[in-house]
Amino acid sequence: MEQPGGAMEPESLPAGRERPIGRGPKVRAAVLSATLAELAETGYAGLTVDNVAQRAGVHKTTVYRRWKDREALVLDALTEQVAADIPIPDTHAVETDLRELARSLVRMLTSPADRAVTIAMFSDAARVPEIGDVKRRFFADRFLRAEPVVTRAVERGELPAGTDPAELLKTLIAPIYLRLLITAEPVDETTADHAAQVALAAARAGALHPAGRERPSPAAGRSR
Amino acid sequence: MEQPGGAMEPESLPAGRERPIGRGPKVRAAVLSATLAELAETGYAGLTVDNVAQRAGVHKTTVYRRWKDREALVLDALTEQVAADIPIPDTHAVETDLRELARSLVRMLTSPADRAVTIAMFSDAARVPEIGDVKRRFFADRFLRAEPVVTRAVERGELPAGTDPAELLKTLIAPIYLRLLITAEPVDETTADHAAQVALAAARAGALHPAGRERPSPAAGRSR
Repeated sequence: MEQPGGAMEPESLPAGRERPIGRGPKVRAAVLSATLAELAETGYAGLTVDNVAQRAGVHKTTVYRRWKDREALVLDALTEQVAADIPIPDTHAVETDLRELARSLVRMLTSPADRAVTIAMFSDAARVPEIGDVKRRFFADRFLRAEPVVTRAVERGELPAGTDPAELLKTLIAPIYLRLLITAEPVDETTADHAAQVALAAARAGALHPAGRERPSPAAGRSR
Repeated sequence: MEQPGGAMEPESLPAGRERPIGRGPKVRAAVLSATLAELAETGYAGLTVDNVAQRAGVHKTTVYRRWKDREALVLDALTEQVAADIPIPDTHAVETDLRELARSLVRMLTSPADRAVTIAMFSDAARVPEIGDVKRRFFADRFLRAEPVVTRAVERGELPAGTDPAELLKTLIAPIYLRLLITAEPVDETTADHAAQVALAAARAGALHPAGRERPSPAAGRSR
């Protein structure tokens, strides 16, 4: 699908109706980076494919060939950015895995550039209904990527069998987003570590099963 | 301080430079209600004391006599509204108290009128720096009002001594706000009950002590 040649030497090729840069991985990176910059600058409501293309230095048709609309573009840009900023840890212990996930999230959300993107996404949610779709798909993807942190912990007997990965991950990130966007408190590494501790305690108590079905025993998952 | 006479029969009194309605509890209610309506309609960024006064049918000076600025007005309006919508329960059991608190919050946040206010507050947070102050003071007040739910539970031996009320309350509300405003998922009574269960499990495990200081024993607070 990709044409690396086009991406490797886009400037040196003779200009045609469609420049090879339009199909290389380099253009993908340029367009996604331009999307984030536009998001941070103008918000979701003001973002247009035209402006993204212009900022990336590509034709609008080049953008539309890869992304069917603004939503697809934003979803892809956010997903790639967050995948880079929040790698999925594998420290062989659930406590340190959760702490690393939470710390990466805090680092990302408090870095000026990403913070602007985050705020833009949430600020415009009221005015742009389709942003809900983007957010749902974005988080579904994130939870799926991080799922191994939970399944491995269950396999190691650190968490009760049946612990719901998405529930645990939501419990982990909820207090961080709450402080950042709802109660307007500072977030730092302590917030992250505390979030990991709370999520772990709830999971060990069996409170993070699907649909919140409680398991009365506080003893953790030797039961698989 | 209040002049009930003025509030009881405002329309029938002869008009003066300052109408008695301006000092009665009725004007307070009218102004706060107009503030919420303006918030829902125009957002925080667009809200002006002028428009609030006009909507409430009072002079601007009447508003300024009670509230020094837009922030004080919005803080007061939100605080009163939420105090009415989310009474502090006292069911003599921490589990049902927390469940009631969470259910009231879900009911409030999903009612169309209050939902509009909530979204306005969070949507404009990026554009209006002082909104951070309003949110911090609003939540500090809320947590203080709900504190007895936690202190009574500790007194009854249902929660470990030293459980931090604000930490517990934040753990309780975090997944509700997360779903409503961040991951864009539906929230309902099940969300509320699950949130109560998770917060309770974390508190019983000793994970909700000030600054997240962990208590290793999962046994709950017989230690007071």
